[in-house]
Amino acid sequence: MPNMGRKLRVGMVGGGGPANFFGGPHRRGILIDNSAELTAGALRSNPDDAIASARDLFFTRGYGDWRSMIAEEAKRDDGIDYVTIVTPNDAHFGPAVAAAEAGMGVLCEKPLVMNLDEARTLHQAVKTAGVPFVVAYTYTAFPMVMMARHMVADGKVGEVRKVEAWYPQGWLAGSRESTADAAGQKQASWRVDPSKSGASGCGGDIGTHAYEFVRFVAGLTATRVRARLKTFVPGRALDDDFTVLADLDNGGVATIAASQVTIGAQNDNGFRVVGTEGTLEWSITDHNNLKYYRAGEPVHVYRLGGMYNYFPSTITPFIRVPEGHPEGFHEAMANLHRCLEWQIRAKLGEQVPDHMHLPGIADGVAGMAFLDAAVRSGRQDGEWVDVEPVG
Amino acid sequence: MPNMGRKLRVGMVGGGGPANFFGGPHRRGILIDNSAELTAGALRSNPDDAIASARDLFFTRGYGDWRSMIAEEAKRDDGIDYVTIVTPNDAHFGPAVAAAEAGMGVLCEKPLVMNLDEARTLHQAVKTAGVPFVVAYTYTAFPMVMMARHMVADGKVGEVRKVEAWYPQGWLAGSRESTADAAGQKQASWRVDPSKSGASGCGGDIGTHAYEFVRFVAGLTATRVRARLKTFVPGRALDDDFTVLADLDNGGVATIAASQVTIGAQNDNGFRVVGTEGTLEWSITDHNNLKYYRAGEPVHVYRLGGMYNYFPSTITPFIRVPEGHPEGFHEAMANLHRCLEWQIRAKLGEQVPDHMHLPGIADGVAGMAFLDAAVRSGRQDGEWVDVEPVG
Amino acid sequence: MPNMGRKLRVGMVGGGGPANFFGGPHRRGILIDNSAELTAGALRSNPDDAIASARDLFFTRGYGDWRSMIAEEAKRDDGIDYVTIVTPNDAHFGPAVAAAEAGMGVLCEKPLVMNLDEARTLHQAVKTAGVPFVVAYTYTAFPMVMMARHMVADGKVGEVRKVEAWYPQGWLAGSRESTADAAGQKQASWRVDPSKSGASGCGGDIGTHAYEFVRFVAGLTATRVRARLKTFVPGRALDDDFTVLADLDNGGVATIAASQVTIGAQNDNGFRVVGTEGTLEWSITDHNNLKYYRAGEPVHVYRLGGMYNYFPSTITPFIRVPEGHPEGFHEAMANLHRCLEWQIRAKLGEQVPDHMHLPGIADGVAGMAFLDAAVRSGRQDGEWVDVEPVG
Amino acid sequence: MPNMGRKLRVGMVGGGGPANFFGGPHRRGILIDNSAELTAGALRSNPDDAIASARDLFFTRGYGDWRSMIAEEAKRDDGIDYVTIVTPNDAHFGPAVAAAEAGMGVLCEKPLVMNLDEARTLHQAVKTAGVPFVVAYTYTAFPMVMMARHMVADGKVGEVRKVEAWYPQGWLAGSRESTADAAGQKQASWRVDPSKSGASGCGGDIGTHAYEFVRFVAGLTATRVRARLKTFVPGRALDDDFTVLADLDNGGVATIAASQVTIGAQNDNGFRVVGTEGTLEWSITDHNNLKYYRAGEPVHVYRLGGMYNYFPSTITPFIRVPEGHPEGFHEAMANLHRCLEWQIRAKLGEQVPDHMHLPGIADGVAGMAFLDAAVRSGRQDGEWVDVEPVG
Repeated sequence: MPNMGRKLRVGMVGGGGPANFFGGPHRRGILIDNSAELTAGALRSNPDDAIASARDLFFTRGYGDWRSMIAEEAKRDDGIDYVTIVTPNDAHFGPAVAAAEAGMGVLCEKPLVMNLDEARTLHQAVKTAGVPFVVAYTYTAFPMVMMARHMVADGKVGEVRKVEAWYPQGWLAGSRESTADAAGQKQASWRVDPSKSGASGCGGDIGTHAYEFVRFVAGLTATRVRARLKTFVPGRALDDDFTVLADLDNGGVATIAASQVTIGAQNDNGFRVVGTEGTLEWSITDHNNLKYYRAGEPVHVYRLGGMYNYFPSTITPFIRVPEGHPEGFHEAMANLHRCLEWQIRAKLGEQVPDHMHLPGIADGVAGMAFLDAAVRSGRQDGEWVDVEPVG
Repeated sequence: MPNMGRKLRVGMVGGGGPANFFGGPHRRGILIDNSAELTAGALRSNPDDAIASARDLFFTRGYGDWRSMIAEEAKRDDGIDYVTIVTPNDAHFGPAVAAAEAGMGVLCEKPLVMNLDEARTLHQAVKTAGVPFVVAYTYTAFPMVMMARHMVADGKVGEVRKVEAWYPQGWLAGSRESTADAAGQKQASWRVDPSKSGASGCGGDIGTHAYEFVRFVAGLTATRVRARLKTFVPGRALDDDFTVLADLDNGGVATIAASQVTIGAQNDNGFRVVGTEGTLEWSITDHNNLKYYRAGEPVHVYRLGGMYNYFPSTITPFIRVPEGHPEGFHEAMANLHRCLEWQIRAKLGEQVPDHMHLPGIADGVAGMAFLDAAVRSGRQDGEWVDVEPVG
Repeated sequence: MPNMGRKLRVGMVGGGGPANFFGGPHRRGILIDNSAELTAGALRSNPDDAIASARDLFFTRGYGDWRSMIAEEAKRDDGIDYVTIVTPNDAHFGPAVAAAEAGMGVLCEKPLVMNLDEARTLHQAVKTAGVPFVVAYTYTAFPMVMMARHMVADGKVGEVRKVEAWYPQGWLAGSRESTADAAGQKQASWRVDPSKSGASGCGGDIGTHAYEFVRFVAGLTATRVRARLKTFVPGRALDDDFTVLADLDNGGVATIAASQVTIGAQNDNGFRVVGTEGTLEWSITDHNNLKYYRAGEPVHVYRLGGMYNYFPSTITPFIRVPEGHPEGFHEAMANLHRCLEWQIRAKLGEQVPDHMHLPGIADGVAGMAFLDAAVRSGRQDGEWVDVEPVG
Repeated sequence: MPNMGRKLRVGMVGGGGPANFFGGPHRRGILIDNSAELTAGALRSNPDDAIASARDLFFTRGYGDWRSMIAEEAKRDDGIDYVTIVTPNDAHFGPAVAAAEAGMGVLCEKPLVMNLDEARTLHQAVKTAGVPFVVAYTYTAFPMVMMARHMVADGKVGEVRKVEAWYPQGWLAGSRESTADAAGQKQASWRVDPSKSGASGCGGDIGTHAYEFVRFVAGLTATRVRARLKTFVPGRALDDDFTVLADLDNGGVATIAASQVTIGAQNDNGFRVVGTEGTLEWSITDHNNLKYYRAGEPVHVYRLGGMYNYFPSTITPFIRVPEGHPEGFHEAMANLHRCLEWQIRAKLGEQVPDHMHLPGIADGVAGMAFLDAAVRSGRQDGEWVDVEPVG
């Protein structure tokens, strides 16, 4: 890594409450590489709690809410370089637009916002501001997933015929044991509340991750979908099981399946990209390996490790150790931040490594367009619904 | 196993040609347990070849065609006890009906016949004759699949919410390497010919296997389906990729996916049964293990082995070695024959072990009803089509 | 497979008792390919039982003991072509010598005999008689193990530096549950009795299998050994845990580890051959895959399947199905018999496929020499003991 | 985690050079949890480079050498709380003793020092000073390894009969591809130099890791050893392959095997603990799972995840995410630092969670005693050598 002039300064919105899950991983991702610091935080909805939380978590400056944080930081010479948004879905849009308009970079959790209208508005704001933007499709930031994208783009599977993407979980299956402790229940609560989560529960929370494999790895986009949205747990307002058949813009097809009621599944997302010349397969349950199949040949298993020459120079900057020391979720988090950081540093005139770009604002909008179509199809018992194009 | 009075006498239809694949496995399944013998064969379509083939393969009696075989054997005191049908799909119906009418047991390859009308006619013939009938849904005959059926029936997953069943293959992907040698090409040729294979290629050949997991393991039946049938290889007349979303008769859902163009997949069929209390998962790629998940508990991996007390007495007769000596495909074939054999022996008044029944004629008909609905849905771009009930 | 003039005629010694484990697998191995028949049996030690057992198991002719069987069959025009010996270790030598002297082929269970003296006498008898002889090192008969041998011989790992071979089991761990049922206890009883098993329990029963990987796969022989023989279960007369460090005749080394007290292990044998240019790795727990490692490359996983062109023509005759239909233990058993059968048919003037030879008499003797040295080393607290050369 | 009064202040010795591997992981481990900061660094042997490196890596204060760093920091009110030593083996002793004598905590890389004499001197210094001390046996800091220790201590395997521990690598196999790039070669160079690495190469670098599984997981210590130390790569001064048979202080045995020439192995360390009642098995290649075997039961696979109630309260503080988001090497690094940090905070009067203690100074000394005996045995062609007791 090159010598850096200074650490980037990061602001965080949300992520400070005791039951919050993703604040911790984002902070670890920001800190692990020692190239950025926790500068400003508006970490909880109650202003007093927010300020206390920022202090307890060693943020340099605490704020009572994101509006004041963005406004104040924008005025400072040593103000934040980018904002990380780690709130429930209903609280992404406001700070994302404000940060972009203030000229700050944004790293936003997914799904991007609450609906396609918000997404388009935000898209326009980001384009206008010209700021770097990364969406936390965290699984795209695993190096072997990047490698799959590279290999597809390099023609290794030929023309893509079919993409299968999956993301089963079991923690919302509704049995006493699967809902776990109080913290887990709070995590669960906003995810099953339409006013906080949007029109889809399972689809929004994890179906969008699965769909992004179609976009990021295969480089393709759904044109129309048939969706089956099921709510298995009695009394739940949103879908907890989500299956979509999609047509793709190259003439191929996709199957996208997510579930929150598959007892025993942890976060077992993965994909298979089937082409005319070969197949690529990855699962987070074996995340440091990527399987490449060609007819009549042994299976080729690509393994993670900075020392392997088969990685292109656009991916090696995202690998931290030579080989065999397993990297995982927090490193992927760090890669999201690294990618945004390097876009910002490049704008600041610093030299940064050539590197693969992780999903940006257009990908976030595409995820909302997919979700929007899937929800409409689901409400029509699976009728075909066209996916609206991303402007 | 009990002392048996005599070996059963088996007749075989088809399975004698040099390019035939399934004749060999069936013969191995018949012979491996030393309880039956190859008595009569009508093994090829050309009568001279048929008789020569029977001689070369050490059948006691060779016939030029199945009609004469069934007629002649029916007259003998030492005539065959059952007929195994190993022909392409278009040549199942005739010998199956004739054998049943002659009072012989039948073990028939899948899919049962060419269409639902034939299936119903055959069903009636078998019911009228009262003969034992087994359909070669071979994967149900793996002991760990039987164990899954037992555990679902025993309430181990609670109420079933969703069944996922899959069967990807890659050998018909159309690349030069995947079609392999001449024998393979002949195997391939009838499977992609509607006049021999029926209205569906991939769905009929392997989608029916996947659907049978829904029936056999989960004990459920599809009531309506949306189907996506794709033909990826240019010039092919039938589907080579087959995906179905189904509603089930208990209010649950299923996803059934099969493919012949997934390069690298061998015959990687498997299933996941998701219930309110737990999940069961099996894949042929790890076929001697069955995974059982419950919320908050370690994964419980049941392993094959006659010494394990967790198997019920209805399954242990299908396990041949104590543990750790892998059993696989040929033993599953043998289990199909063993199941039919014991039904026949029971009718002959012999004492046979209490054992699980493998799929019979009604299951074969149900497979055709599913396929019939899927093909109609596929032709309507995935509209809902009701699955006709099995009488 | 070529058209065969007649089925070979097989005699079996032992393997008929209700508690016998290996009789069944050998019969299945003989019968599965429909190229040999169960002609003569001397299946139990009590003559009346032996004759009854032969009748019940559908042998053409039953004998009260192996002496009369070999004598009578030798006189017949339609006498047996070879003898399969499935008795406890103390009863291998007699019938093996007698069969060889009568000009019959022999397929003998392992370890070859009770001690090195017997082994040498038998070796001489077989050489003098010039009869085909196969030792039931069954795991060498898994096609992927043959493939490993082929690849080592083909230079794929360079010069071999180290071989690790292992075979842990858990069934003799001494806890109530691990000893299982009465049949299992009988199986266990002779294996822990020096008068029936020889000077080593664990080493003789399964350590010899592990050592044969050194011989068969790597093509190397131990020149001296340090051995640790442990008896963990109180009151047991023989070792139940067996670890050997060996020097090899090419200057490399080996570690050979077997155990009968590793609770949870089934028959988890396997090996790793480490060379200057690459490594090959196989385990029966994933027996249809062979892993090949080269520095800096993806792992190459060779999979079983008759359609894969990477298999040499000497191995394809031992593969029964195209791909993806798992073959296992019984097919390996059948391959042992197939190999012997083809050697016999070749002597009879029939044309047989070019094929890899599985372990023969010299390999059986080498196993005894290894065991002899290991036992002596074990008794000297692990002092170096030279392995006697096989004449 | 409790609210912490302030971040701990960390000093680092070594780890700043461009070719250094372990400096980065330690810094990530220190930073990831946001509870400590990089306060002082003496990161390279050349003083100017050291100071430049500290500045570039954002240490608060840079020093030209560790002597001045420890001396100066000891005088400050805001001086460092502990020292992390990330130098080659020959440069552990000096700063470790000095830091202890200055009353600072120490986190030291392994093997502890150059020889047993140094180890004992350091041990005494640490005891006298009464400072917290952690040895970087990083693999013990994987939560599933801690869980194994907990389960053994809880009696889950009964009395331990045998421990197998392994650590194969391939990067020093000597082929052109396996030595990789310049950085790798520098990493390699000190590891094969006796003046920097000590009397054993492979044994010291990774054999000690494997041995620590015996100590940490099984809670046992070797009393005598037979060792085979091999040097396969021509011209190398130290062993690159290391195998030890050990007797343990409870009457059981161990096999400890490490290798640097196993092409294809990454850092595939793991262990199997075999007891009278069960077996525990773990491998870094599947590091988020722990397998527990009991006779006659399904395999129980314990999976990582903060939400699983089966973890005792002493381990949950080392798990960062609920489930299914893979944690790996950097989190294990962080756990080493976390453990030391909590010992220091407890001494400072802060309340810290009840937690499992990771290996300390006595374990470091025990590793040196083991290595000392193994080297002496290796030089005597594997004669038994007693392991000296740790005072």
